Amino acid sequence: MESKTKPDGKIELSCPVPISDYKNVLLAHGGGGRLSHQLIQKLFASQFRNEFLDQDHDGAILPVNGARLAFTTDSYVINPIFFPGGDIGMLAVNGTVNDLAMCGATPRYLSAAFIIEEGLPIDDLWRVVLSMQEAAKRAGVLLVTGDTKVVDKGKGDKIFITTSGIGIIENGIDIYPKNARQGDKIIVSGNIGVHGIAIMSVREGLEFETKIESDCAPLNGLVHTMFTASTRIHVLRDPTRGGVASALNEIAESANVGMLIHEDRIPIDESVSGACEILGFDPLYVANEGKLLAIVHAEDADKILAAMHSHPLGKNSVIIGDVTTEHPKMVLMKSRIGGTRVVDMLSGEQLPRIC
Amino acid sequence: MESKTKPDGKIELSCPVPISDYKNVLLAHGGGGRLSHQLIQKLFASQFRNEFLDQDHDGAILPVNGARLAFTTDSYVINPIFFPGGDIGMLAVNGTVNDLAMCGATPRYLSAAFIIEEGLPIDDLWRVVLSMQEAAKRAGVLLVTGDTKVVDKGKGDKIFITTSGIGIIENGIDIYPKNARQGDKIIVSGNIGVHGIAIMSVREGLEFETKIESDCAPLNGLVHTMFTASTRIHVLRDPTRGGVASALNEIAESANVGMLIHEDRIPIDESVSGACEILGFDPLYVANEGKLLAIVHAEDADKILAAMHSHPLGKNSVIIGDVTTEHPKMVLMKSRIGGTRVVDMLSGEQLPRIC
Repeated sequence: MESKTKPDGKIELSCPVPISDYKNVLLAHGGGGRLSHQLIQKLFASQFRNEFLDQDHDGAILPVNGARLAFTTDSYVINPIFFPGGDIGMLAVNGTVNDLAMCGATPRYLSAAFIIEEGLPIDDLWRVVLSMQEAAKRAGVLLVTGDTKVVDKGKGDKIFITTSGIGIIENGIDIYPKNARQGDKIIVSGNIGVHGIAIMSVREGLEFETKIESDCAPLNGLVHTMFTASTRIHVLRDPTRGGVASALNEIAESANVGMLIHEDRIPIDESVSGACEILGFDPLYVANEGKLLAIVHAEDADKILAAMHSHPLGKNSVIIGDVTTEHPKMVLMKSRIGGTRVVDMLSGEQLPRIC
Repeated sequence: MESKTKPDGKIELSCPVPISDYKNVLLAHGGGGRLSHQLIQKLFASQFRNEFLDQDHDGAILPVNGARLAFTTDSYVINPIFFPGGDIGMLAVNGTVNDLAMCGATPRYLSAAFIIEEGLPIDDLWRVVLSMQEAAKRAGVLLVTGDTKVVDKGKGDKIFITTSGIGIIENGIDIYPKNARQGDKIIVSGNIGVHGIAIMSVREGLEFETKIESDCAPLNGLVHTMFTASTRIHVLRDPTRGGVASALNEIAESANVGMLIHEDRIPIDESVSGACEILGFDPLYVANEGKLLAIVHAEDADKILAAMHSHPLGKNSVIIGDVTTEHPKMVLMKSRIGGTRVVDMLSGEQLPRIC
């Protein structure tokens, strides 16, 4: 999808390759699944192409003065802005902290840019700011620069926050999606699907016996603990939008490997799996905000797992499967009853504005 | 404005100090003038307080592995997204490039986070992406990481873009708003008010004899040229939202100095001053996107000015005034007819969503 220069020297402005045959952007293009992936690959990546963007990472790894920096950005548009277990401010800090941690970096500095809808109560903004400051403190990062824009009523939705972050990657750490290799073990750091279900329950007005609260949390401490056990960690990824299924598919594609996971090993709260049944969701596609996937060298897997169990955010960590050479770029799952099925990337929209 | 802990240990969530007596966020809180300044100082700066945020800069200057990095972020919400002389994509790249340049940094890496309203034509997104890539190439920066979110129709406005940037500050460069000192000369790099008037003309459907196009441009080349002439440049600032008047006021406040500028020296296009009269705007408050203010050592002012004249983006550069010890934190202007008046920061809203 290159830009075409017409004979008169002007650039051809109509997008020359259809993005999945759609003429307009759909909600699903922001859902973290197949359509998001296509939009990013065909439209952005094709134009901006460079060695850093091509890393397919949660952030870019940049050489600066002999050090390796991780640099990442995310916009947060979650609805509602206050939800059980968190709010948009906490999410914006932890989300960017986690993207840096997933690059193997120690998060250091964050920026925050606010797009506020005219009429937002100052008290709501204040709550969000307090929450960001608390989250930054917990994660050990500093908010060092920012921006505020206000849009007219009806042209935004209360508040959108974009955080960017800078982290430092220590020597000996080498985390890239393409580093997954045959024989590696796939670890998930805890019970899946909690964040997405917490948000959907509020939106749908569902009540459960036990209140489901978002798992939103900073993962840099857990990652640090893992590295003290072994540096043979090949890939880290936090399965947010699109859930565990989409994250594993992206890694499989990047590394050109297959994956086999086992349904009976995937940790899930009873309340979450119950809610998924009611709402018609597959928990493998539901967003997480305080969980990570780690693809690690088989020989060190138990050591890393033990270290994870020692950390409050990793106490339910489990090895859920293996990286294979068979069926490259595909994720398969052995079901409880013994069959094997393909676990594809999320297609279409499932949970809009979940982060 | 500290957070209060109530006897039950919960945090007091209502904002304890009124932000200018408003209970809700107004458009003017994003206008770049007095209300923006208050919102940022009272609400954000009071909570996030740290040595980097306290620099009052267009970005933060951070020590990383013996190097000094500049780190900056801005959200772009301009309306309309395509305008004479540019579009939101070009603006988002140049704006962040310029914020880095105003820290005295060589811009290197940019991130881009998109918040797209459902239904945006893919072709419009494509035009924006092409334009960003072109702007990045021109400014010599790489777009290395990004994010895409989609919000439901009516909860956004076509597209908002947040760019963050990283630049490197060479040894010997020391640019901070607080560095303005008595006797320094104040330079503006060209004719003022062009961007704001270009946008307002489209919005108001005004037509002029000569079409007014935004001055949106990357200023890092011009800054580089200035540094080759002298490193005794104390402050740089691009007078965007709030215009020249608000930018000078912010610097005067930061450095605790006064300023005296001369109306008859301020360069302005006839078409822009005509449009300002029709629209009832003071050009000193109108946004610029390809102009800078430089506060420089008096002895090197002519040398720096000559260098600026040699650059296409600085050929109309003029010394418009001096930094004084009298009337600290105030900007005065000698008018054409000989009187002197206070040039205050922009109060209230003038041009919403101008960048």
